[in-house]
Amino acid sequence: MIRLYYAPGACSLAPHIALEEAGAAFEAVRLDFRQGEQRGEAYREINPKARVPALATDRGVLTECLAILAWIARTWPEARLAPLEDAWAMAQVHSFNSFLASSVHVAWAHISRPGRYADGEAAAEAMRAKAPEALGGFFDLIEGRLADGRPYVHGETYTISDPYLMVMTGWIRSRDMVPRARMERVLAHYELVRARPAVVRALEREAAPA
Amino acid sequence: MIRLYYAPGACSLAPHIALEEAGAAFEAVRLDFRQGEQRGEAYREINPKARVPALATDRGVLTECLAILAWIARTWPEARLAPLEDAWAMAQVHSFNSFLASSVHVAWAHISRPGRYADGEAAAEAMRAKAPEALGGFFDLIEGRLADGRPYVHGETYTISDPYLMVMTGWIRSRDMVPRARMERVLAHYELVRARPAVVRALEREAAPA
Repeated sequence: MIRLYYAPGACSLAPHIALEEAGAAFEAVRLDFRQGEQRGEAYREINPKARVPALATDRGVLTECLAILAWIARTWPEARLAPLEDAWAMAQVHSFNSFLASSVHVAWAHISRPGRYADGEAAAEAMRAKAPEALGGFFDLIEGRLADGRPYVHGETYTISDPYLMVMTGWIRSRDMVPRARMERVLAHYELVRARPAVVRALEREAAPA
Repeated sequence: MIRLYYAPGACSLAPHIALEEAGAAFEAVRLDFRQGEQRGEAYREINPKARVPALATDRGVLTECLAILAWIARTWPEARLAPLEDAWAMAQVHSFNSFLASSVHVAWAHISRPGRYADGEAAAEAMRAKAPEALGGFFDLIEGRLADGRPYVHGETYTISDPYLMVMTGWIRSRDMVPRARMERVLAHYELVRARPAVVRALEREAAPA
């Protein structure tokens, strides 16, 4: 049995959605970040990085959103979650997801978890002041991709980049970090993805009482 | 003709090495970061993110180290730069490379490019003070992977994770950011990779006068 370790609303929501899209049989294991469960000894044996997501299978543990998403797409090819046969198109999926992981998520983490990057309230304040500028630039690029009526990140077809972007858009939107007029297409993308049955199922599971 | 846009010693060195390992025909186009060439209009038309690497092919432009590395491995399968046939093993390659991109490189960027994350010298100082702690933890994890005489990141076989790690190790090593006794296997890995003919060729090209 596959087990996905997640925290509600964290980036682990993206592979959670992808497992639902794939119709995979899996167990979703919730970690309580408020209790610091991700730093506990039991979880560190699973993922020494003390982060989510982690996916446990009979071959071992896989970490990092991008890698778990790629593995799900390849393991359930009938779900058509990525252009598996086209090396160039697949590389564009990896590229976009890597940009989300190493630029967008990182900029957000300077607001949500400033202690990762510097100690002290003054530094936290300076990072919180800078992050909206970075996020604005990143979302301008994403807004540009969705131009010309392309509904999804990679065009006409839904891929593993779409739930991953939806999760990040949800974060930015929750704090009005980027002016809404500047990300109209991104917000329409959010609603389009948010309405998918697999997304609704994953969100309901994450919101259910522990 | 494939063109790789790079800056000497930047993370673009990893795909530069991979193209050499693959025996690819390519043109290496150097950007002068001291002149801010990556932010100039000409380069922004190629990569609006104003970063390196970017790979231009007849299908368009591909950005992000991880994605370019994966595409090279798949486009030149005879070079055996990744476990292409094994979805789980390939996902582990993506996982390690994503960790380098979004954790190791990001921690380093707080030292080398603090202005990305906060304005002001006090904040830069706070970030520079914190980064060695983060990098120490990351390199402890990597040192652990190389235990039991595994020469390469993924075991007995050289993959696209190895030049990518070598580049990061080179950065850390250049400033003695992590005590050397704590990363002995990582430093041995650096020397092993550094001696490969493809690596020597890429480094010589990057070091040549402009």
